[in-house]
Amino acid sequence: MSSQPVSAPDSATAEPLTIMGAGLVGSLLSLFLARRGHQVDVYERRADMRRGGAVEGRSINLALSDRGWRALEAVGIGDEIRQVAIPMYRRVMHDVHGNLSFQPYGKDNQAIYSVSRAGLNRTLLTLAEAEPRIRLHFNQQLTSLDPRHRRLELRDTVTGQEQELAFRRLFGTDGAFSAVRSALQKTERYNYSQSYLDYGYKELNIEPGPDGEWLLEKNALHIWPRGQYMMIALPNLDGSFNCTLFFPYEGKHSFASLQTPAQVQAFFEEIFPDVVPLMPELTDEYFRNPTGSLVTIRCFPWAFDDDVLLLGDASHAIVPFYGQGMNAGFEDCTVLNELMEQLGDDWPAIFSQFQQQRKPNADAMAELAVYNFEEMRDRVGDPRFLLQKKIESKISAQYPDQWTPLYSQVTFSHTPYAEAWQSGREQEQIMSRLMSHIQTETDYDRPEVQALVAQEMAARS
Amino acid sequence: MSSQPVSAPDSATAEPLTIMGAGLVGSLLSLFLARRGHQVDVYERRADMRRGGAVEGRSINLALSDRGWRALEAVGIGDEIRQVAIPMYRRVMHDVHGNLSFQPYGKDNQAIYSVSRAGLNRTLLTLAEAEPRIRLHFNQQLTSLDPRHRRLELRDTVTGQEQELAFRRLFGTDGAFSAVRSALQKTERYNYSQSYLDYGYKELNIEPGPDGEWLLEKNALHIWPRGQYMMIALPNLDGSFNCTLFFPYEGKHSFASLQTPAQVQAFFEEIFPDVVPLMPELTDEYFRNPTGSLVTIRCFPWAFDDDVLLLGDASHAIVPFYGQGMNAGFEDCTVLNELMEQLGDDWPAIFSQFQQQRKPNADAMAELAVYNFEEMRDRVGDPRFLLQKKIESKISAQYPDQWTPLYSQVTFSHTPYAEAWQSGREQEQIMSRLMSHIQTETDYDRPEVQALVAQEMAARS
Repeated sequence: MSSQPVSAPDSATAEPLTIMGAGLVGSLLSLFLARRGHQVDVYERRADMRRGGAVEGRSINLALSDRGWRALEAVGIGDEIRQVAIPMYRRVMHDVHGNLSFQPYGKDNQAIYSVSRAGLNRTLLTLAEAEPRIRLHFNQQLTSLDPRHRRLELRDTVTGQEQELAFRRLFGTDGAFSAVRSALQKTERYNYSQSYLDYGYKELNIEPGPDGEWLLEKNALHIWPRGQYMMIALPNLDGSFNCTLFFPYEGKHSFASLQTPAQVQAFFEEIFPDVVPLMPELTDEYFRNPTGSLVTIRCFPWAFDDDVLLLGDASHAIVPFYGQGMNAGFEDCTVLNELMEQLGDDWPAIFSQFQQQRKPNADAMAELAVYNFEEMRDRVGDPRFLLQKKIESKISAQYPDQWTPLYSQVTFSHTPYAEAWQSGREQEQIMSRLMSHIQTETDYDRPEVQALVAQEMAARS
Repeated sequence: MSSQPVSAPDSATAEPLTIMGAGLVGSLLSLFLARRGHQVDVYERRADMRRGGAVEGRSINLALSDRGWRALEAVGIGDEIRQVAIPMYRRVMHDVHGNLSFQPYGKDNQAIYSVSRAGLNRTLLTLAEAEPRIRLHFNQQLTSLDPRHRRLELRDTVTGQEQELAFRRLFGTDGAFSAVRSALQKTERYNYSQSYLDYGYKELNIEPGPDGEWLLEKNALHIWPRGQYMMIALPNLDGSFNCTLFFPYEGKHSFASLQTPAQVQAFFEEIFPDVVPLMPELTDEYFRNPTGSLVTIRCFPWAFDDDVLLLGDASHAIVPFYGQGMNAGFEDCTVLNELMEQLGDDWPAIFSQFQQQRKPNADAMAELAVYNFEEMRDRVGDPRFLLQKKIESKISAQYPDQWTPLYSQVTFSHTPYAEAWQSGREQEQIMSRLMSHIQTETDYDRPEVQALVAQEMAARS
C-alpha cells in the first residue's frame, strides 16, 4: 500500500481555508490541509457528536477498504483505527433454510473492515482538534452562500445568532444534501441529477450472545440474498451485528406490504428464518427505525473558479452496495493532497485538475455501486455465479499480471475507478466465454479449458 | 392524420381546474380542458403578450409538425394556423463556398412548418379568452406551492399584491424552469436532472429583399453545417429569416473566442460567407442579443397523487435540434385528452397512466434531439450521408410497410417516440450494412444490392 505522506510546505504560501461539513470527509480533509501549513476553519451544522447523541439517519457501520486506509495512513491514524476495525475476509450467504455458502473477498489476507461510522468520525474530530491550525465550529448551519463574492452566512442552531463571513477558499464536504452544492446549482448551466432507487433500507440489530460473543461468524459480511431484495449484516466490536434490510418501497414484498408487527414477524420467519431467534427486538426496531432512501447524486462542475470545491458525497453521493462511499470520499482527499504537492499554490490548476481527474471516476463508481446491488441481492445466491468467482480467482492466481478481479481492483487497489470498471466489463465478457466450457471447479484444469484460458490471456497482454 | 375530437362530457362530473403557465402548452391545454366541460383558471407569470412586447429569451419561430397539427386540429385551429405557417419541404445545406445541397424531409407533400412562437401563442390565448369556461390571469407569479394541502401563493408582479389560493387539481405547464416542478422536487425521493450542452445559441436575422421577398429559398430550412457547430435559418412571413447560430461556449471557434465586432465579422466572412451580405446588422445583433443555453430536463414522477401534473417543458425540456419541443408538449395534451375520454373522471388513473405512457417517450425524444444535433451540424455536410438518405427513401418507396425513415416517424407520424427511436436504431444498422455495397445512387438498382435489400426486408416483416 503506497501512501502519500503529508509534508508541510513553506508556510509563507499557505493561506486560510474554510471547510463546510465536519463529517468523515470534512474532518479528514481538515487534517490534510492543516498539515500542509494552512489555517483551517471547519463549520458543522450538527452538534459535536463527541458530546453524546447518535448520528441520525446514517448507517451505523461502514466497510473500510484500501482507498480509505491509504488516506487514514497519510494522516497517521491507520494503526489507531485498525485497533477498532473488524476484518471481514469473506461473504457468507444465508439461504432461506439457513444453509450457508461462502465467497472470499480476495486473496488470503485481504479483507474489508467493519468500522463504526461514529467512532471513526469522533477519532478524526479529536485529531483535528489537537491540531493548532484547525478550528472546529459546531451548530453552524449554512443559510446562504454567494460563491461569486466569496461570502457566506451561518446561523447558530443553538443561540439562533447569525453571522456573515468572507472566505478565500471554501471546501464543501457537507454530504449528499450539501448546502454548498445548492448554491453552485444556482450558477449558470449547472449540471445536476438526483436519482433514487425504488428501494429503501431499514436498520435492524442482531444481539450479542450472553458472554458478548458473536452469534454469526465474526470476520465476515453476511448476506441474505433473496432475488429482488436482501439483508446484510456487519459485525460490531461488542458482539452485535448491524443488519440492513434493502427492500422495495412498493410491491408484493415491500415496505408498503408490511404494515403490522404480525406481518413483519411472519415475513422474517419465512424469508430470514435463521436470524429471527437472534433479533428479539425485531418488530419494535422495524417500526421504530426510519426507512432510509438510496440516492445517487451527480453534478458538474465541482469547482466554482478557484474559490469553491465540492468533495465526497456533496459531489458524488452513491448507493452503498460496493462499500465505497466513504472510501471514494477519502480518496478525494488523497488525490487533492497529491495535486497540492505537485502544483504548490496554483489553486486554479489544483481545482481544475481535481475535478477533471475525479469526475469520471466518481461516475464509474456510481455505476459500480448500482451494479453490485444486483450482484448481492440476486447473483450471490446462484451456484453458477459462485463457481464463476472460484474460476476467476484461479485465473487471477495463475495469471496475476493479466487478471485482477473487478472487486479486487475496486476494493484492494488504487486503480482509478473508471479503469477498474472498464477492465471489469472486459473480464466479464471473457468469463462468459470461458464459463460455457466449465461445469465444475475441476474443469478448470482440463487441457482444453487451460488452452482457452491461455489464449484469452495472450490476447490481454 | 387521425385527430381525436374534443367532446364535452356530462358537465355534472366536470370540476374546476387550475393551470400554471399560459405559454404554448398551457394555453392549448386550457382549450382541451374547457371543451371537456371544465371551468379552468390559467395563471401566467408574464404580462399578456398580446398587449405588446416581445417574449424574451425564446426562439422566434418554431417548426410545427404532425404531432403539433393533430392537437391544433383537435381544438379547431388547424386551418387558422395553416394560413400563417410556411411549409419547409427540405433542408438546404450551405457549404463554406456558398454551394448548396439538398435533402427532402419526407415524401412529396410532406413538410415541417415555420410558425411564429409569439403569433401561435397569441392565437391560442385569444381562443382561450373567447371560451366562457376559461379565465386568464396575467402577471401572476407562483411564489409558493404546497402540493400536499393543495394550496398555492401568487404574487401580482405589477401591484405586488399577494394571494393564497386553494386548488383541487393543478397542471404545471410553466416551462423548463417550472416553479410547479420546483415544489415537486422538494417531495420525497424525487428524481431530477438538468443537463446542459457545452453549446449556446445566438439569434440573428436575415433581412427581406427590397420588395419583401425571401433572399434564400423560402420553403426550406437552411443549414450551414460546420462540423463542431452550425447555423440554421427558418423563413418568416415578412420575407426575413430567423437565424440561430449554435456555437460552443469555449474553444478555438466559440462565443469565448469572438469578443469584438471585427472578430465576428471576420469569422462570418470566412465561415458563412454567403449570409454576410444578407445580415447588415450582424455585429450589432451578435452583441445585443443574449446567448441562450441548451438544457435537457428529466424528472419523475410528473404527477403528485391526482392533485398536480406536469406537462410540456416543465416535465421534459429538450434541446431544439429535432424541432419537437412544442410538438411533444402538444402531444402531451392529445394524450391527456384521450385518457380523459377513456377514463372519465378517474383522475388517479388518468394522471398515473399519463406519466407511465409519456415518460419513456419523453426520454426517447430527449435522446433523439441530441442525436439530431450531431446529424445537423456534422453529417448533413457529408456526401455519403446524403447518399444514404437518398437510398433510404428509395427503400421506403419500395417497401413502405417495412420501412419508414426515423425522421419521418418522428415528424410525420404519431408513432410513440420510444418506438420510433428503437426502430430508427435498427434501421441505421441495416443501412450501415447496405451502404458498404453502395457507392452511387444507381447502385441501388443493381441486382445484388436489390437482393440484399430484399433479404433485409424479409427479416423485418
